[in-house]
Amino acid sequence: MENNKKGYIGIAQINPTAGDIEHNSIKIKNFIIQAQKMNLDLVVFPELCLVGCPLWDITDKYPFILEENIKWLEELAKITNSTTAVIGFAEPAGGVKYYNSAAIISNGKIQKIIRKISPKLTPLFNDFKYFEPAQTKNENTIEINGIKYSICIGEDINNDLAQKTDVIINCNALSSLSDNDFSQIAIKYNTPTIFVNQVGTTDNITFEGASKVFDKNGKLIAGAKSFEEQLLVVNPLQGIGEIYSDTHNTNVYSESFSLDYEFDMERTYKTIVQGIKDYFNKNELKRAVLGLSGGLDSTVCAVLLADALGAENVYGVSMPSKITSNESKSDAELLANNLGINFTQAPIIDMFETTNKCFEELFKTIETNWQDRYKKPFTKDNIQARSRAIILWGISNEFPNAIPIATSDKSEAYMGYATINGDMSGGFAPIADVTKTKLFALARWLNKNRTIKNAIPESIILKRPGAELAIDPKTGKPLIAEDALMPYEFLDEAIWRIENKKENYQDMLNSEFLYETTHQVSKEQKTQWLDKFYKRMAGALYKKSIMPPYVIVDTISPTSIPISSKVDYKGKTTEEIKEILSL
Amino acid sequence: MENNKKGYIGIAQINPTAGDIEHNSIKIKNFIIQAQKMNLDLVVFPELCLVGCPLWDITDKYPFILEENIKWLEELAKITNSTTAVIGFAEPAGGVKYYNSAAIISNGKIQKIIRKISPKLTPLFNDFKYFEPAQTKNENTIEINGIKYSICIGEDINNDLAQKTDVIINCNALSSLSDNDFSQIAIKYNTPTIFVNQVGTTDNITFEGASKVFDKNGKLIAGAKSFEEQLLVVNPLQGIGEIYSDTHNTNVYSESFSLDYEFDMERTYKTIVQGIKDYFNKNELKRAVLGLSGGLDSTVCAVLLADALGAENVYGVSMPSKITSNESKSDAELLANNLGINFTQAPIIDMFETTNKCFEELFKTIETNWQDRYKKPFTKDNIQARSRAIILWGISNEFPNAIPIATSDKSEAYMGYATINGDMSGGFAPIADVTKTKLFALARWLNKNRTIKNAIPESIILKRPGAELAIDPKTGKPLIAEDALMPYEFLDEAIWRIENKKENYQDMLNSEFLYETTHQVSKEQKTQWLDKFYKRMAGALYKKSIMPPYVIVDTISPTSIPISSKVDYKGKTTEEIKEILSL
Repeated sequence: MENNKKGYIGIAQINPTAGDIEHNSIKIKNFIIQAQKMNLDLVVFPELCLVGCPLWDITDKYPFILEENIKWLEELAKITNSTTAVIGFAEPAGGVKYYNSAAIISNGKIQKIIRKISPKLTPLFNDFKYFEPAQTKNENTIEINGIKYSICIGEDINNDLAQKTDVIINCNALSSLSDNDFSQIAIKYNTPTIFVNQVGTTDNITFEGASKVFDKNGKLIAGAKSFEEQLLVVNPLQGIGEIYSDTHNTNVYSESFSLDYEFDMERTYKTIVQGIKDYFNKNELKRAVLGLSGGLDSTVCAVLLADALGAENVYGVSMPSKITSNESKSDAELLANNLGINFTQAPIIDMFETTNKCFEELFKTIETNWQDRYKKPFTKDNIQARSRAIILWGISNEFPNAIPIATSDKSEAYMGYATINGDMSGGFAPIADVTKTKLFALARWLNKNRTIKNAIPESIILKRPGAELAIDPKTGKPLIAEDALMPYEFLDEAIWRIENKKENYQDMLNSEFLYETTHQVSKEQKTQWLDKFYKRMAGALYKKSIMPPYVIVDTISPTSIPISSKVDYKGKTTEEIKEILSL
Repeated sequence: MENNKKGYIGIAQINPTAGDIEHNSIKIKNFIIQAQKMNLDLVVFPELCLVGCPLWDITDKYPFILEENIKWLEELAKITNSTTAVIGFAEPAGGVKYYNSAAIISNGKIQKIIRKISPKLTPLFNDFKYFEPAQTKNENTIEINGIKYSICIGEDINNDLAQKTDVIINCNALSSLSDNDFSQIAIKYNTPTIFVNQVGTTDNITFEGASKVFDKNGKLIAGAKSFEEQLLVVNPLQGIGEIYSDTHNTNVYSESFSLDYEFDMERTYKTIVQGIKDYFNKNELKRAVLGLSGGLDSTVCAVLLADALGAENVYGVSMPSKITSNESKSDAELLANNLGINFTQAPIIDMFETTNKCFEELFKTIETNWQDRYKKPFTKDNIQARSRAIILWGISNEFPNAIPIATSDKSEAYMGYATINGDMSGGFAPIADVTKTKLFALARWLNKNRTIKNAIPESIILKRPGAELAIDPKTGKPLIAEDALMPYEFLDEAIWRIENKKENYQDMLNSEFLYETTHQVSKEQKTQWLDKFYKRMAGALYKKSIMPPYVIVDTISPTSIPISSKVDYKGKTTEEIKEILSL
């Protein structure tokens, strides 16, 4: 037996891939070996790290993968020596259910298994569906080198399932750090507490790492990096550990809407960049191609992609139509040059003309059978967005491991203000959960905080957003989105009120929006905006259902709402109901 | 007080819309009035019928709608007289949780509320997430006109929560009838049992109605229609009730794969037709436009759409490219004529040429920065599918309440053998959960069982499926899908084995496929097919995630799998694992 360094613990903050046991096992092995070389007493891995998290229906549809993780666990145990490893895995519980368990392995054997009791409450994980809670409270303590540890998986730490020992360890896979304050656990048990978190993104769910160690008084003595894999060595009883600079996790519930996004920009940026990286890496993708319109959405996407994938792996294509302004074209090119990404132009004028000609004849024929033809410009306008998507998908088909990027933002997604098979189309949608007002703040933050300053031309930030698909007959210039919808500040606050306060139409009508404190808004105007907001929001459910994969930025955003539903119900008074139901 | 007809009960088999309380309430009112006119003792509505089912995140995101359903319930109570009504509704349980409850209303008042204990186990409903189980076993009996009833909501009936009374009533919203045999409940309690089911479709979830009444010996004494709203009047104690012809619900788990789909065709047909109808009606849509290629997929879609929406609301467009055969064009036209749907041609030759020209120049430029250009025909081939989708979306933009139809089938969806923004694109995908071999059976069944026989030209059924996007260099004819993939009989059985038996790669390799009993298949050939199957299946997860809304036909199909996962893991022996993990 080696002489382990008493009380030294490795926090193995790793990024596993769901279902990829082989990849995860090799990663785990490498961290174990490092820990062994350092003669640590203990190396602790995150919750479910052997099979990845979340698994969702992998548990039900591919149970084989979960069966196999046992084999790998057993073999991992065989490589252990006196350095104990704690590994989160999925333990078959009979049928299609699994325990969310942690194996304590050392000296070539599985020494003990601890089962989790509490499901994750974040609806996204849907833990109730997949995991069987442990039937009885575990005896969850182990002793190593004379030190007693209590080991708790995930949310069990919040449910009085830790035990007062020398050190409390929490193996977790926590997607929203802001709800948890582990210093309080240390204080409550008067025991040093180690929080081991997963890092990495699975489709839309982000784990940001930032594992932490607190002494028995709740004082932070060590903190791992955010958004990076790391083996952080600590000795909580001796107060030894390094504190890496943390990404401020301030995405906390706020009582009122604010346009001051500054405090949240670093987290937003890192969340999306990790989201892009992991989506590409875990799906064997490498290159991204996107349309550069000279507008805010595609601009911010380009910056994020360049930072996540490397500028050489990003191709920006300017695809001007007849109504694209020279400014848009030059802004797009300037941006690409500033970022160092690949850039080219592919005008869509011919594609537009050919399709439009086809439409003109075809619609005349169809009109003879189907009445009420709109004859409004938007059908024609959409040809532009869809021709562009054809080009981007063509490039992605022709060049290996390349996908097109959908550049829709969250404000547009809520309003259905995006073209299906157009700007909504792509293999990944980096900013689909970022509202327009937040994108403006992000653009400014990027200009200030990236190594290369001011990559985004000021003119792009100053421009009022619009799809540049249509000319406003009133101004003779491209239509401005806010004129077609409502001011983004108002729109984004309405979204915020739905998501954060679960407000309804009447609540919104009767409370003061931030926008109203700085602008005169008549009751009629507000009613009109809210009517439009509710109507468009309900109608956009379908579009949201076919949005490409994206990363969640606002932790509470994703929802599953039946499309065939009426969510724009505004309520009726009892008198009105009585009237409607009168016999 | 009126003289009610003792023991007479109305089964109100209704089709509610999720979240549309006003619509649902008016429907409920009308059924109550009918029941009152007939002086029934009781009229029973399905589970959650006041708010609709499933609600999913409506409960969490739009709690207002659930709060409002209480108001409507109270007003509905006020219109009741001595005819008691039992109405499923969502009862606030504090916070964002709700009880799944039934209100007993009569004589102007809510008399009693019964709360459900058991969650629905079908994963799709995700009941655990939304509903709070009742804390205590309900006293769930009521007495009307001297008869004692025990009222059970949904799955409570299976969990010993009924009580021996004169009549047991089960208010349900059951998506898969085949798992339940209510005659057994009657026998178990030696009590007449009434099963009241919801009818209608919410997005992908089908309720087929077919409410039933059994006498105390388990003998069927009344059965409501399948797939239709109905007020069925019964008197279980007197054995009075009518039995409407039922759609055989035979979608039961089978031990082995079969190509004999005959037994399941009526259910499949009615499920899809109701799915189309309800998706269109509940979303205020009216018209469908689809590309008619002369192939099986678009053909079956056209028939189903014509039957669901009326032929006048369906537009078939033949969009030939250079490689479209004359036979395909004439088959498409003949089909349209047989169905009486609108039909026109819109060649895509110009669109293809223009786009192709754009591609040629563009790809040369991109090649200077991005190596490894494929230079394979599929990029070009896809232009055809995407040009067609542009035309269909254009029509849907130009003509009110019209959506394009995605014609992909389930075999293709599993294999990712469909073009994004091409045949995969649309506002609804009627056959996305029907495998190719089942589609052939459905085509034959439609020809035999519709009022107008043989609407589908025999040549379409005899043709071997292919996308007709590419020429096979070996034959000089359009590429056949089975040559690019594997025989559909084999492919569909692999899907069946994954979904029904949860088999893995090795299981499949080591068991005999139906196809192998009639064809010589070498081990090498089978391995190659399975390799391809697993690789394509894993790669297609992304495509499945952006599939338009569709109706579930195979009750266990829909799943949520992380895209960034590895579900094609084939396993390793312990020796191999040891080797990989060796130090």
